[in-house]
Amino acid sequence: MSGKYVYRFGDGRADMRDLLGGKGANLAEMVRLGLPVPPGFIISTQACRDYYRLGRNWPGSLEEQVAEALAALEGECGRPLGSAEDPLLVSVRSGGAASMPGMMDTILNLGLNPESAEGMGRSSGSAIFALDCYRRFLQMFGDVVMGIPHRRFEDVLETARRRRNAPEHGQWDEETLRGVVQQYLKLVADHTGDPFPVSPRRQLWMAIRAVFDSWNNQRAIAYREMYGIPHDLGTAVTVQSMVFGNRGPRSATGVVFSRDPSTGARRLYGEYLLNAQGEDVVAGIRTPRPIADMAGELPDAHAQLERYARLLEGHYRDMQDIEFTVEEDRLYILQTRSGKRSVAASIRAAVDLAEEGVIDREAALLRVEPEALARLLHPTIDSRAALDVLATGLPASPGAATGSIALDADSAQARAEAGERVLLVRPETTPDDIHGIAAAQGVLTARGGMTCHAAIVARGMGKPCVVGCDAIRFDPRGDSVQIGDRVLRAGDILSIDGATGRVVLGEVPLVQPDLSPYFRTLLAWADGARRLGVRANADTPADAARAREFGAEGIGLCRTEHMFMAQDRLPIVQAMILAETERERRGHLERLLPIQRADFAGILEAMAGLPVTIRLLDPPLHEFLPNLEELGAAALGSAPTAREHQLLQRARALRESNPMLGHRGVRLGISHPEIYEMQVRAIFEATADLVSRGVDARPEIMIPLVGLDRELAFCHELIARVAAEVAAARGMSLACPVGTMIEIPRACVVAGVIAGQAEFFSFGTNDLTQTTFGFSRDDAEAKFLTRYLDSRILTANPFVTLDRDGVGRLVEMAVEGGRRARPDLKIGICGEHGGDPASISFFHQAGLDYVSCSPFRVPIARLAAAQAALSASRPASDAPSST
Amino acid sequence: MSGKYVYRFGDGRADMRDLLGGKGANLAEMVRLGLPVPPGFIISTQACRDYYRLGRNWPGSLEEQVAEALAALEGECGRPLGSAEDPLLVSVRSGGAASMPGMMDTILNLGLNPESAEGMGRSSGSAIFALDCYRRFLQMFGDVVMGIPHRRFEDVLETARRRRNAPEHGQWDEETLRGVVQQYLKLVADHTGDPFPVSPRRQLWMAIRAVFDSWNNQRAIAYREMYGIPHDLGTAVTVQSMVFGNRGPRSATGVVFSRDPSTGARRLYGEYLLNAQGEDVVAGIRTPRPIADMAGELPDAHAQLERYARLLEGHYRDMQDIEFTVEEDRLYILQTRSGKRSVAASIRAAVDLAEEGVIDREAALLRVEPEALARLLHPTIDSRAALDVLATGLPASPGAATGSIALDADSAQARAEAGERVLLVRPETTPDDIHGIAAAQGVLTARGGMTCHAAIVARGMGKPCVVGCDAIRFDPRGDSVQIGDRVLRAGDILSIDGATGRVVLGEVPLVQPDLSPYFRTLLAWADGARRLGVRANADTPADAARAREFGAEGIGLCRTEHMFMAQDRLPIVQAMILAETERERRGHLERLLPIQRADFAGILEAMAGLPVTIRLLDPPLHEFLPNLEELGAAALGSAPTAREHQLLQRARALRESNPMLGHRGVRLGISHPEIYEMQVRAIFEATADLVSRGVDARPEIMIPLVGLDRELAFCHELIARVAAEVAAARGMSLACPVGTMIEIPRACVVAGVIAGQAEFFSFGTNDLTQTTFGFSRDDAEAKFLTRYLDSRILTANPFVTLDRDGVGRLVEMAVEGGRRARPDLKIGICGEHGGDPASISFFHQAGLDYVSCSPFRVPIARLAAAQAALSASRPASDAPSST
Repeated sequence: MSGKYVYRFGDGRADMRDLLGGKGANLAEMVRLGLPVPPGFIISTQACRDYYRLGRNWPGSLEEQVAEALAALEGECGRPLGSAEDPLLVSVRSGGAASMPGMMDTILNLGLNPESAEGMGRSSGSAIFALDCYRRFLQMFGDVVMGIPHRRFEDVLETARRRRNAPEHGQWDEETLRGVVQQYLKLVADHTGDPFPVSPRRQLWMAIRAVFDSWNNQRAIAYREMYGIPHDLGTAVTVQSMVFGNRGPRSATGVVFSRDPSTGARRLYGEYLLNAQGEDVVAGIRTPRPIADMAGELPDAHAQLERYARLLEGHYRDMQDIEFTVEEDRLYILQTRSGKRSVAASIRAAVDLAEEGVIDREAALLRVEPEALARLLHPTIDSRAALDVLATGLPASPGAATGSIALDADSAQARAEAGERVLLVRPETTPDDIHGIAAAQGVLTARGGMTCHAAIVARGMGKPCVVGCDAIRFDPRGDSVQIGDRVLRAGDILSIDGATGRVVLGEVPLVQPDLSPYFRTLLAWADGARRLGVRANADTPADAARAREFGAEGIGLCRTEHMFMAQDRLPIVQAMILAETERERRGHLERLLPIQRADFAGILEAMAGLPVTIRLLDPPLHEFLPNLEELGAAALGSAPTAREHQLLQRARALRESNPMLGHRGVRLGISHPEIYEMQVRAIFEATADLVSRGVDARPEIMIPLVGLDRELAFCHELIARVAAEVAAARGMSLACPVGTMIEIPRACVVAGVIAGQAEFFSFGTNDLTQTTFGFSRDDAEAKFLTRYLDSRILTANPFVTLDRDGVGRLVEMAVEGGRRARPDLKIGICGEHGGDPASISFFHQAGLDYVSCSPFRVPIARLAAAQAALSASRPASDAPSST
Repeated sequence: MSGKYVYRFGDGRADMRDLLGGKGANLAEMVRLGLPVPPGFIISTQACRDYYRLGRNWPGSLEEQVAEALAALEGECGRPLGSAEDPLLVSVRSGGAASMPGMMDTILNLGLNPESAEGMGRSSGSAIFALDCYRRFLQMFGDVVMGIPHRRFEDVLETARRRRNAPEHGQWDEETLRGVVQQYLKLVADHTGDPFPVSPRRQLWMAIRAVFDSWNNQRAIAYREMYGIPHDLGTAVTVQSMVFGNRGPRSATGVVFSRDPSTGARRLYGEYLLNAQGEDVVAGIRTPRPIADMAGELPDAHAQLERYARLLEGHYRDMQDIEFTVEEDRLYILQTRSGKRSVAASIRAAVDLAEEGVIDREAALLRVEPEALARLLHPTIDSRAALDVLATGLPASPGAATGSIALDADSAQARAEAGERVLLVRPETTPDDIHGIAAAQGVLTARGGMTCHAAIVARGMGKPCVVGCDAIRFDPRGDSVQIGDRVLRAGDILSIDGATGRVVLGEVPLVQPDLSPYFRTLLAWADGARRLGVRANADTPADAARAREFGAEGIGLCRTEHMFMAQDRLPIVQAMILAETERERRGHLERLLPIQRADFAGILEAMAGLPVTIRLLDPPLHEFLPNLEELGAAALGSAPTAREHQLLQRARALRESNPMLGHRGVRLGISHPEIYEMQVRAIFEATADLVSRGVDARPEIMIPLVGLDRELAFCHELIARVAAEVAAARGMSLACPVGTMIEIPRACVVAGVIAGQAEFFSFGTNDLTQTTFGFSRDDAEAKFLTRYLDSRILTANPFVTLDRDGVGRLVEMAVEGGRRARPDLKIGICGEHGGDPASISFFHQAGLDYVSCSPFRVPIARLAAAQAALSASRPASDAPSST
C-alpha cells in the first residue's frame, strides 16, 4: 500500500488513463504536447483503491507526496496556497478511467479564506471579483464536502437579492457580497457545529476525501451498474491551479470546435465571452460572440487557439471540442475531447481528415457511427421550429412525417389514393394493415415495442414510425383519438418524428435529406474495405430499385406473402384456401399464376444482372383469412352469409395453438405442393420471358423453415420437374440455385446434411431467435422483455442485436457444418439483424458471405460491414481517445 | 460375373445370410447341426444380382452349377426329377437377407407332368394323392410363373364342385381330379398359347426366373421402401426336395413351440395332424390334435422331435417355433425360428433359460421387449370373448376399460363421485378436462395423435386411452354420439382397448394383470445391470406411492400446475390472477400456501428417503382462466356477470399469439416473484414439518424454461431468502438442491454458464423437441406430422422417440458444457421420452444420470436402461438369429 501515488502533469501520458483517470491523462497529454495548460498534479486511482482497502484511511506516503507536489505547484505558479498577497487557488476534480459525467464531485476556487480573499482582491484589483469567488467556493464546498443542502445557500442569496432589488448577483456591490459571505460562514458553523476550515491545506484534504468518497455515492454506483463499469476501479483526483477569464478586458473564456459540427467544414467554430468565467457562458446571462470576432479583439490568443486546435486535431486524429480561457492575454487550454457533431459533419470531417492525410481511410471509416446514417436518409424536422409536442413514443423508424390522421388501413388507402397525405394512427398493426401502411406517410401506434409489426414493416418500407405511444386513447366509436389531453378527429393534421419518438400537433417544417458527395465517398471507401456482400430485402420493383440506388448488390429476401395479401389477389387467395379439392385449388392457382409471374418479372428486371432470392410462401394459410374473432362477432351480429359461414368454418379448421411453430413454410409446401408449384412456375416463366428479351434475370429459389434434409429433397424434385416443363415449353435451358432458410435450431445442428441439398443458406435470425430462446416475439415484447431488459437479465433485446452466446453459437455451428459438407456453400442472412451494425460485426466474424436488410439500411450495412472487416484486421484501439 | 453361385445345404452356415438368404442359411445351419432336413441346394443372392446386371440373363456358369447340384440331389434322394417310376418333387422358394414375408414367390410340387404324376400315384399307392399334388402344382405354377389370374383356376374348381355336389375337393374321386387337371392344362394352353411345359428341368428354370423377377415386383419394392431395405441386395433361391406328411397313417405334419408361448413353461407345445399336408393344418378342415398325443401315435418321431427342439433351443438360445413333417415314420424338420410368444411367456422363457444355464442373465435381459411390459401392467380384454367392435382408433395408452359414457369432464366427475364407472368420450381434451380424465376409467377421443393431450395425461395416469377415432360423430346437442352407424347416449356402456385401439360396444370380460415372480426376477436383474437411475413423474401422493411400488428411485418431475387446477383451488388461483395489485395477489397466495404445503408434504412423505424434484409453476396464467372463445360466447348469450366480464377482460389481456413460447416458466416467476415465493415457502415449510417428525424428506427445486443464467440467479436469490426465513422461524437449518429444466435450445448452447447456477439439469425433451424443430406439438400432429411420417420425410415421430441427430445433438452439447463447468452436475430427463426404450438407449449413451417417466412406464424404463447398458458393453449381435 505505498509507492508512487502522485503524478505531476508533466509525468503522465494519454495511455495512463487507468491510473490517472481520463481527465488527468488528457491534461498530462496536452502538457506533453507543449500546450499551455494551467499546471497541476494528479492523485492516482491506485491511491483511491488503497484508501478503500484501508477502510477509508490515507495510504502510506500519500500525505507526503501531495505536500511535495503542492509545493512544486506553488513554486511553478509563483503563488502560495492561502497567501494573503496573491494566493494560489486550485480546482479539485474527480476522474475515473471510464467517463461518468456528473456522477462524482468537483470543487473550484479552493484555497480561499478571509486573508487570502483579501489578498486576491488586492492582487486582482477587484474586491468584488475576489468576494464572488469566495462566495462560490463556500457554497460549493459546503454543499459537496460538508453535505449542507444546496437550498440553504440559495435561501441566503434570495434574501440578499430581495433586499437589494438587484435580481442578479453579478451586479451586487462589495457590501452585499461581504454580507453573503458572512451569512454563508454562519450557515456552515450552525449546520456543522464547527467554523468553516480556514486552513487551505485542510480544505484540500477534505476535498480529496470527498472526491474519493463520491466514487461510492448512490448515483455513481447506479451509473456503473447501468453501464457495466466495475466497482473496484476507483477515481483519480486532479488538483489544478485556477486561471480566470474574468480578470478584465484582456481576459476571456470560451469553447471552440476545430471544425463546424453541423457541416464538418474546416474552420474554428464556437463562442467566447470577454471578461467572463466558464459558468457565465453556460448561464446565458450575456450573449456569447462568435469565435471569429476574437481575431479582432484578442488577435494573439486567437491565432494561438487556431494553431493549438490543429495540433490537437492532428494528434487525436479527430475533430476536437476545446475549452479555453484567456487570462490577461495569456491563453490556457483547459480541456479537449472528440467533438460531438451532426452525422453529416462527422462524415465530412472523416473524409476531409483522410484527404488531408491526418488519418487514413480506414480510420475515417471507423469514425462514423453506421446507425447514424439512418438520419441522413429521411426528412427531419427543422431544428429551429417551435413544436407543440403532444406525447412521445418509441422511435421505431427514422424520419419525420406529416399527414392527416387516418384511423384504419382502408380509409388510409382510400384517402391516399384520392391524393391526400395521411398518417396512419392505430392501437397496433397486423398483416391486414399492410396496404394502409404502404399508403401512409408514416405510422403511429399506441402499443408495441421496437420490433413490433408496425416497426418492422415501416423500417422495411423506410417510412417514419413511432410505436408504443401509450398516451393515445382510441374512442370506441372509431372516429377520434385523444393524445395527452387533446382530442383529434380523423382528418386532423399530425406529425411524427421517427428519430426521437415525438408526436407533434399540426404541420412541421421538414428538412429534406441531401446525400452529400462526402457520404458517397465514404460509402465507396466502405465498399473497398468490406468483405461481406450487402443485399436488400425487397418485395416490389420499387423497393428493389431503391435498394439498388442505395448500393444493394442483390435481393437477399423477396417475400411472396405480401404479393398474396394485396387487395386484388386476396379474394383469389381466399378462394384457393376455401377450395374443397386439389383440383379446385389448382383452378384458383391458375388465376394467380400470371399475377405472380408479373410480380417476379418486375423485380428480376429491376435487379437485372444481380441475384434475386425469392422465398416461396411462408406464413400459415390462416393469415390470409379474416381474423377468427372478428368473423365470429360479425357472424353473430346478423345471419351470416354463406361465404362468411364458409370463411368462419375454414378459419376454425386452420386455427393453431402456436402458429409460429405451425403449419407454414416448407410444411405447407409439402402438404399443398400445388402452391409451390405455381410459384416456381411463375419464377421460371418470368425468367424465360426476360431472358428471351435479353434481360439478365438471376433468380434464386429459397425454401423457408427447413429442418430436415428430406424436406428440401422434396422441393428440389418439384423444382427440377417444373423447370424441365417450362424449359421444354420455351425451348431453352433453365436452371437456378436452390437454397434454404436456416431459421430453426435443428437446421443449424444438422446443417451438414442439409447442405447436401442446398446451394445456399440464408439465416432467418428472427425466427431462429424466437425458437432458440423459446420467445414468441410479439408475446415477449408485450409481456416480459421490458422487465428482462430493465432488470438486466438480458443486456440487449435479442430481436434487435443478435445474441452471440446462444443464437450466434448456432449460426457458427451451421456455418461450420454447411461448409464442411459443401465448401462452396454461399451463406447469407436476411433477418432484421442484417441491418444492425453490432450483428453485422458478428456475421463478418462468423464468415458469412453477405447480409441482407431493408433498402433504407443498406448504406448502414455497407459501412458496418467495412468497420467489421477493419476492426478484425486492426488493433483494437486505433487512436488515443480524448475525454 | 461368375464364380460359385450354387451351394448345397451342407456347404452353408447361419452367418451366410447375406449370400444364401435367411431361409437358405437357416436350412444349411440345421443340416450342419445334423438335423433331418430334406436335402436341397441354394442359388445365391449374388446370382440374382448378376442376373439383373446382365439385363435379366443367366450369369456365367449358373446353368452348369444348377445341373450339377440337381444331379447330386437326385442321387441323394434316390429319385430322379420327372421320373415315371418314383419322381423327385422339389419346392422352389425365394429368400433374401432381410425377411420380407409373403412379398416374393414360392412354387411347390415342381417336377410333375403326366408321366411323373402317374409314377407318383403308383409309388405312393394313391392316384388321388398324386393327382391332387399335380392339380396344386399346375395352379400355383400357372398363377405365379405364368401370370394367369388365380380366379380362373378357382372357376374351374367351383364348376367341378357344383357338378359333384361335393363341397370340398378333399373328398373328390379320381375321375373328378383327372377332369380338373385336364381343364387346368387347357386353361394354361388357352391363356398362353402354348402347352404347359412338361420338362421338369424347364419348369425349374422358369420357376427360378420367376423368383428372381419377384424381387422387383411392386409389392416387394413398396415393402422395401417402407422398411428401408436396400433395393440392390437381391434374393436367393432355395430348391428343396418335397416330403409328404400325407403318405398314410404313419405320416403326419405339425408345428411345435419348444416352450408354452403363453406361459413360457418348458414343454413342447403345439399341434399335429396325421396323414396330412401343412396347408391342411392351416385350412382348418380337420381339427389338429395336441402334440402330447403324438407320443402315443408316433412315439419315435415324438421323442426325436423333443430332442431336436432342445437342441435347436440350445443352439439358437431362444424358444423355437418348429415346422415338421413325418413321412412314413421318418421325421423331417422343415423350418425353425424364434417363437412368437406372450409377454409373460417371453419373460418366463428368458428367466428359465438363464437359470437353466442356456443363456446368461444379460442375454435374458436382452430377450424381452421393454415396451411389451406395458401390457402386463394393465387389465386386458379376455382373448376368448366375442366382441362387437364398433370402430378402431389409435392405441394411446394400454389397458382395457369399461364404463358408462360421459360426454364432458364435469358430468364424468359428478357421476364417478356418485359411484358410477364412467368412460370419458370427447372430441379431444384440454387441461380443463383433467378432473374428468382423473375420474374416468378410460378416455376415448375423436381427434388427436399418439402424443395429444389426452394420450399424454392418460399414460401419465396409467389409464387406458384410445384417441383419433374418427368414426365418432358428436351430436351438437351434446347428449349422444354416433360411432360407426350406432347411436349411443350418455350413460350407455362402452369399452375400449388401449393396447389395440378397439372401441367395443357394451361390457367386456377383463383379465386382471398379475405380476409374476419371473417379472420381478427379470427386473431385479435389470436393476443390477443398468447404470441409469429411474425416477417417476408424479404429482400426487397416490401416484408417488404407485411409482415407488414399480421401482422408481425418486420423483424426477413433480408438476405443480395440476395442483392449481384442482376444483377446490381453481377459484383461488383465478382470484389471484384477477388481482389488480401485488398486495391483493399476495393475499390470495396466502390462502394457497397451506394447501400447497399439504400437497408437498404428502408427496415428500410418500417418497421419504428418496429425492423429489418439484418444478415451480410452468404454464402461462391464461391456462387457469376459462377459454376465451367460450367466455365470449357465454357473455353474448346473456348479460355477463361482473365476474364473467372481469374474467373475459383478463383473459383478453393475457392472450398470447404463441403461448408455448410465451409468458410462462421462469419468465412468470420473474415477473410475479410472489407466486414462486409462495411455492418455495410451501416446500420448505412442508420439509421442516416432516423433518421435525423424523421423516427423511428430500425436496429438490427445479426452475422451468431457463435460457439465461441470470434467470436462474434471480431464482437462486429468492429461494435462499425464503429458505433463510423459514429456517429462522423454525429454528433449523434448511437447504435443498436447486436446478433447472433444460428445454430450450439456448439453454443447451450456453449450458456451461447455466451450470454455474444449477446443481442439476433435467431435460424437458417435449419442449426441447418443439423448439428445436419449430414444431408446435398439437398443431404438428393435427396438420402435417402424419403426412411427414407417411411420406418418410420423418422416419419416427420425434415426440415419441427422441430425434438423435437434431435434439439429441443439443442434449449432448448441454451434457458436455454442463459437466465441463461442474463435473458433479446431476443430469436427468423428465420428458415423455424418459419412458421410451429407444430414447432411453440414447440417454444412456449421452451419459445422463437418470430418466424419469410416468409411474406405469417405470418397469419399462428399468429394463430399457439395463438393455442400453448391456448393448453398449456387448457385441452388437449376441446370438445367431433364426428366420
